Amino acid sequence: MAYKTPALLLSRNRILRNYRELHSAFPDFEIAYAIKSNSFPGIIETLRDEGSSFETASWAEISFLLGLGIPPEKIVFSNPMKPSYAIEKALDAGVNVMSFDSLDEVDKLAVFRDRVKAVLRIQVPNEGSMWPLTGKFGVASNRWPAILERMKKKGLPLAGITFHPGSQCETILGWEAAMKHAYDIFSLARSMGFQPEILNIGGGFPTDLGRPIPSVASIAKVVYKHLNQWDTEGLKPKRLLMEPGRGISGSAGILVARIIGTASRDKDWAFLDAGVFSGMMETIDGITYPLESNAPGEWESSYILCGPSCDSVDKMFTAYLPKLREGDIIAFRGAGAYTTVYSSNFNGFDPPTPYYLDELPEGDAIFALFNDEE
Amino acid sequence: MAYKTPALLLSRNRILRNYRELHSAFPDFEIAYAIKSNSFPGIIETLRDEGSSFETASWAEISFLLGLGIPPEKIVFSNPMKPSYAIEKALDAGVNVMSFDSLDEVDKLAVFRDRVKAVLRIQVPNEGSMWPLTGKFGVASNRWPAILERMKKKGLPLAGITFHPGSQCETILGWEAAMKHAYDIFSLARSMGFQPEILNIGGGFPTDLGRPIPSVASIAKVVYKHLNQWDTEGLKPKRLLMEPGRGISGSAGILVARIIGTASRDKDWAFLDAGVFSGMMETIDGITYPLESNAPGEWESSYILCGPSCDSVDKMFTAYLPKLREGDIIAFRGAGAYTTVYSSNFNGFDPPTPYYLDELPEGDAIFALFNDEE
Repeated sequence: MAYKTPALLLSRNRILRNYRELHSAFPDFEIAYAIKSNSFPGIIETLRDEGSSFETASWAEISFLLGLGIPPEKIVFSNPMKPSYAIEKALDAGVNVMSFDSLDEVDKLAVFRDRVKAVLRIQVPNEGSMWPLTGKFGVASNRWPAILERMKKKGLPLAGITFHPGSQCETILGWEAAMKHAYDIFSLARSMGFQPEILNIGGGFPTDLGRPIPSVASIAKVVYKHLNQWDTEGLKPKRLLMEPGRGISGSAGILVARIIGTASRDKDWAFLDAGVFSGMMETIDGITYPLESNAPGEWESSYILCGPSCDSVDKMFTAYLPKLREGDIIAFRGAGAYTTVYSSNFNGFDPPTPYYLDELPEGDAIFALFNDEE
Repeated sequence: MAYKTPALLLSRNRILRNYRELHSAFPDFEIAYAIKSNSFPGIIETLRDEGSSFETASWAEISFLLGLGIPPEKIVFSNPMKPSYAIEKALDAGVNVMSFDSLDEVDKLAVFRDRVKAVLRIQVPNEGSMWPLTGKFGVASNRWPAILERMKKKGLPLAGITFHPGSQCETILGWEAAMKHAYDIFSLARSMGFQPEILNIGGGFPTDLGRPIPSVASIAKVVYKHLNQWDTEGLKPKRLLMEPGRGISGSAGILVARIIGTASRDKDWAFLDAGVFSGMMETIDGITYPLESNAPGEWESSYILCGPSCDSVDKMFTAYLPKLREGDIIAFRGAGAYTTVYSSNFNGFDPPTPYYLDELPEGDAIFALFNDEE
C-alpha cells in the first residue's frame, strides 16, 4: 500500500542514535526529552524503553506520559508558569522537579515548599537561536536578588538552576554565555544560603536544517569545560539534566507533501498539500528545511512554497526547485520536531499522517513509498 | 455547572442577526458563509435552517457540509488552488461553482469543462485589510489576458468573477477599488467572447474589534452604486454571491480565558490559559480584541498577553488591564471567527470549549458563568 501525503516519516532507530549520541557526549546528564517537539507515542515509547526521562509543559502532558508507563521520577515539569491546580496534580502524581521564573510562581510553589524541587529559570542570551525564547521566559540577572529574597521570605528552597539558549541554537556561544550566567546565579544563591543541587541546561540542541551547526560533541566540550572548572572549586551540581527536543526528534522525521499546483504572479508560487497549519508552523518565523523532490529538471526555478489553505499566512519559504507540476513530491528533511505538534485542521486539511520506518529513506527511496497515488 | 476556561461563548441569535443584516443590505445576493471562520456544527445548522449557502476550501469541508444536510447547489468551492481529485469529487457530489487564479488551475478545470462553473479570482488592493490575502491569491490585471487566452484555448467557459478585499477590511475603499477592477475584467472577458454571469464579492466584512469599521449598509452602498451603474449598461451579473466569514461569526463569539500568573521582566507579562495555539492565532499578525476582565482596580497596568505554552511565539498583544492575579478572567470580544479553527493541542493544552447561549453576556454576566472554578 502506498503512503498518503501529507506524511511524516519517522525513524525510531534515528531517535535512539540521537539519544545515545547525547548520552555519550554528556555521560553525567539525565536526558529529559522535550515531548512538545514530537509527542507521538511511538517516539515516547522508544525513548522510555531506552531509559530516557521526559520534559513536560502541562498537566495534560504529564498525565499522557504516566499513561504510557513513565515513572513520575522520570518526568520534569519545566513550564515556568503553571496553574496552581497543575502544580498540585503533578506533585500528587509524584512529579516534583518544577521550573519557575517569577515572583508569582514563587508564591504558588511555596504553598508546596516541602514537596517541590523548585528550579529557577534564568535568562541567557538567545542570539544564536532560530526560535529564541528570551523575553517570555527567564529571570534577568538584575532581578535575581528579588526572586531569591522572595524565596527566603516564603521559605521555598532553591533546588536548582535552569536556562534555555533558545530552540535550534546554531552557535556554541549560546552555551558559553549560559554557563557563565549559571555560575553567577549558583554563586549568588549560595552566598544567600541556598543549596542548589540541580543544573538543567535545557534544550536548544540543533538539528541539521542545511546550515552549519555545532556538533553535540562541541557543545559538550563547552559545557564540560565549565563544569570541570566548577568541580575544581567543589561546586559541580549533584544532578545534571538536559531537555533536548529537536536534538532528538528533528533529524528523525521527514515531512512529505505533494504539489497541488503552481501560480505565476509577481513571483512564482507552489501550493503544497501541507503548510503552516499542517506541520510547517515554524516557517512563519524563518525556519527552513532542506528539500528533496522527484520533479525532473534543473533546480533553478524559484518558488514561494505555500500550504493548501485559503489563508495568506499559510506561506512557508522561498526555495529553488525544478519546474513543478501537480503530484510532484516535496520532502522536508529535519522535520521530526515542532511540526505535527502544531497542526490544526484549518480549512478541513488533515495533519500529516505518521509512518514509522527503521531508517529514513533518501531520494528515490522516499518517492517510491508514495508511488501508487500518481 | 460552571463553564470551564478556555471557552468560546457563542450566540446563535447573533449569527442570525448578522446574516439577516447582510441579507437585507444585499437583497440580490446569495450569502455563502465561509465555514473556515467557524465550523462548529451549531453555527452551520443555524445558518442552514435560515437558507444560507456556504463557502468551502477543501473536499473535507464540502463532505462535512453534505453530511449536515446542506444541498450541493448551496455550496461553492472557492479555494483557487485545488487538487484534481478534489475537483472531481466535488463535481460528482454536485458542487460546481469553483474559483481559480492560475494557468495550472485552468488546465485542471478544463478537464471538466462541461460540468464546472469556473470563477476567476482577480487581485484587488488589500490595503484596508488587517489580514490581507493578496500575493498568494488573485490574478493581477496585467495577467488577465494570458489567463483568458488559455481558457479560450482549452475551451473552458468563464462563469464569473470573484475577488476578496482581504479579511477584516476596515475601509470601504477596499470595495470601491475591487468593484472597479471587477468592471474592467467583466468588460475584457466580454470583449473576448466570454459570457460571465456570476459576480462573487467574497468576504472581508469586518467585525467590531474596537477600531472604526464601515457598516454593512455603507459597504452595500458602495457595491450597489457600482452594480446600478453596470445595470444601466445592461451589464449587471445574473448571479450575485458573497462569502462573509468573520462578518457573520466574529461578533457571535467571546473567547474567555483565565490568568495563570504574571511575570515582571523588562515589561510585565500576563500568562493566560488560552494563547496563539488555542484560538488567538490571528494576534501573530496584529489582530487585537476588545477585552473585559473581572480583575478589580484601574485599567492602568500594561501587560504583554501570552498563552500557556513553553513557546515564545505564543505571545498575543499588549493591553492595559487592572493588576492581574491567578484566576482572573479575561474575555476577548469579537472572537467568534478565526479562533478555534486554528487551534492545535500544542503542549497538551486543549482548544477552547464551545458553549452556546441565546445572547452573549457582557461584563459580570460573563464572569458569573465561570464562578465555580475560583
